Amino acid sequence: MSDTVVVGLDVGGTSTRATALTLTGERLGTGRAGGGNPTSHGAERAAAELLRALRGALANVDPTRVAAGTIGLAGAARLLADPAGRAAFDRAWRDAGLRCPYAVHGDALVAYASGTAAPDGTVLIAGTGAITAQVRDLRLDRVADGHGWLLGDAGSGFWLGRESVRRLLADLDAGRTPGALATAVLTELMGSAEIAARPRDTVDATIQTVTRRPPIELARLAPLVVTAAADGEPVATALVAEAAAHLVDSVGRIRPAGAVTPVVLGGGLLTGDTPLAAAVRAEVGRHWPAAPLRTAGDGAAAAAWLAARELPEVTDPTALHARLFPTTP
Amino acid sequence: MSDTVVVGLDVGGTSTRATALTLTGERLGTGRAGGGNPTSHGAERAAAELLRALRGALANVDPTRVAAGTIGLAGAARLLADPAGRAAFDRAWRDAGLRCPYAVHGDALVAYASGTAAPDGTVLIAGTGAITAQVRDLRLDRVADGHGWLLGDAGSGFWLGRESVRRLLADLDAGRTPGALATAVLTELMGSAEIAARPRDTVDATIQTVTRRPPIELARLAPLVVTAAADGEPVATALVAEAAAHLVDSVGRIRPAGAVTPVVLGGGLLTGDTPLAAAVRAEVGRHWPAAPLRTAGDGAAAAAWLAARELPEVTDPTALHARLFPTTP
Repeated sequence: MSDTVVVGLDVGGTSTRATALTLTGERLGTGRAGGGNPTSHGAERAAAELLRALRGALANVDPTRVAAGTIGLAGAARLLADPAGRAAFDRAWRDAGLRCPYAVHGDALVAYASGTAAPDGTVLIAGTGAITAQVRDLRLDRVADGHGWLLGDAGSGFWLGRESVRRLLADLDAGRTPGALATAVLTELMGSAEIAARPRDTVDATIQTVTRRPPIELARLAPLVVTAAADGEPVATALVAEAAAHLVDSVGRIRPAGAVTPVVLGGGLLTGDTPLAAAVRAEVGRHWPAAPLRTAGDGAAAAAWLAARELPEVTDPTALHARLFPTTP
Repeated sequence: MSDTVVVGLDVGGTSTRATALTLTGERLGTGRAGGGNPTSHGAERAAAELLRALRGALANVDPTRVAAGTIGLAGAARLLADPAGRAAFDRAWRDAGLRCPYAVHGDALVAYASGTAAPDGTVLIAGTGAITAQVRDLRLDRVADGHGWLLGDAGSGFWLGRESVRRLLADLDAGRTPGALATAVLTELMGSAEIAARPRDTVDATIQTVTRRPPIELARLAPLVVTAAADGEPVATALVAEAAAHLVDSVGRIRPAGAVTPVVLGGGLLTGDTPLAAAVRAEVGRHWPAAPLRTAGDGAAAAAWLAARELPEVTDPTALHARLFPTTP
């Protein structure tokens, strides 16, 4: 058993991470590569990044020792439905010297498993977008939101960024002196907080600046909101509270009232010690007082754990999880 | 004086209308042509539509009798700042046989003047987009919203359409049986109200259908919301109330508390006898109980009236307005 190794990959839009583990939780290697999402990068490039990350994790490991592997990625269902994408991933797997099969799971399941070993629970992820999923027997069951910036992702980084610009424009319309958040947003967008003699000119210039770029780039303004809220800025504090309400509303669409299973918070906006994470914790606690609250951790290790628990020799996957994620309460 | 004629044009994105009037308010002719907005159609095509509408209005009028003219169009400031656009409009004006000068005003001012002769007041327009303007001495003064679908137009047709889809997706997420509005929206988008065995498949298909088209086309769903609200459908009724609150919020950014000047409602969503118009009237009445409420009417006639009141022989423009818009209380 001590010779057996499992491999996990967390494939994201901006980076791919791989980890090789023993079944006692020892980390034998990690690898990192560029974004490897086949939907956004194309199957060949995604597979090349996958291979690079795998080679990093297996630099000091005999790949024939690897008994199981799991790949977590956004849009897992699309990959599984795409023969060319699947073939490219199969090739990368073999080129890394791996002979075992691998499983593909959604990134939401991997985020969930990085926060808890409990088979049933809820994961809420807020980064550029926002999505919630119910997990049953460590499989994704129902999903809420994740509808994209035009129709959903309420409470996400995109949402926070867009709302911060809307509040700025409302201040300019009303002739109010912009507060700290609006000033920061205006400076970020326009390079200066100066307002034209006719404020409508600043309104028009701001709208032009935003609409020249892809809408999703509004998410870049989210850190300004989070930082301002941490400083107690009133508009930012209100936006963060509204975002938390939206996020927990989407949880409520699929998580039963009175549920006592864990809720795992993931994504860049919820894994740090931010006012938004605190507001979401408070809201979740208000709706589900008995729910253990967890924070998502190392996704590649969680993917490797999902692989390990399929092996017959892993008789206590919960104990292995506790060794892998010792800080998880 | 009885020989003098004025001409007005209301240039919109989908149609251009022209009217020729005597100074006693007699309509001598009207003309109609396609959309003539130089921003969306290009200056040459816009000028060609302008000429066609003018020729219709002047079919039975000697153009040398025309002493003044006004063109109302969205983005009037852009036309005035664009020498090529201005030259194309000048040419169309001369080609119609007109020798007098003409003024260019924003469509919001023309909508305002179609509802009241009062020099000061407020106009709120909600159609595909939404904008509010303060009018002072029959000139546009401050403006609120009109920020476009990505960042603003709160309570507009786009907003109603997008929110109706968001409510549908929330129903599907939660496994709720869609109500009458959600059913109508699903049928309009997908050709059927059928929900897949995995409702997430219907969610994904709906999002794909919407995102394949330009976002602004979500405004096409607004009539479904208005109709459902008229039938008392609860989700539609709530959306209409929320839209009215957004629209009146933008009025509040620029209209002083306690103002007693008129408020003119314009745009396709507010000129009919719709639940949204009723909700906006109620909200405006709540905030400004003494404000006379008016509805926008014939924009081309209002533009002609704006032209007439600049002529020295028009000594009582309010009386002329009353003759032109007899149904306005």
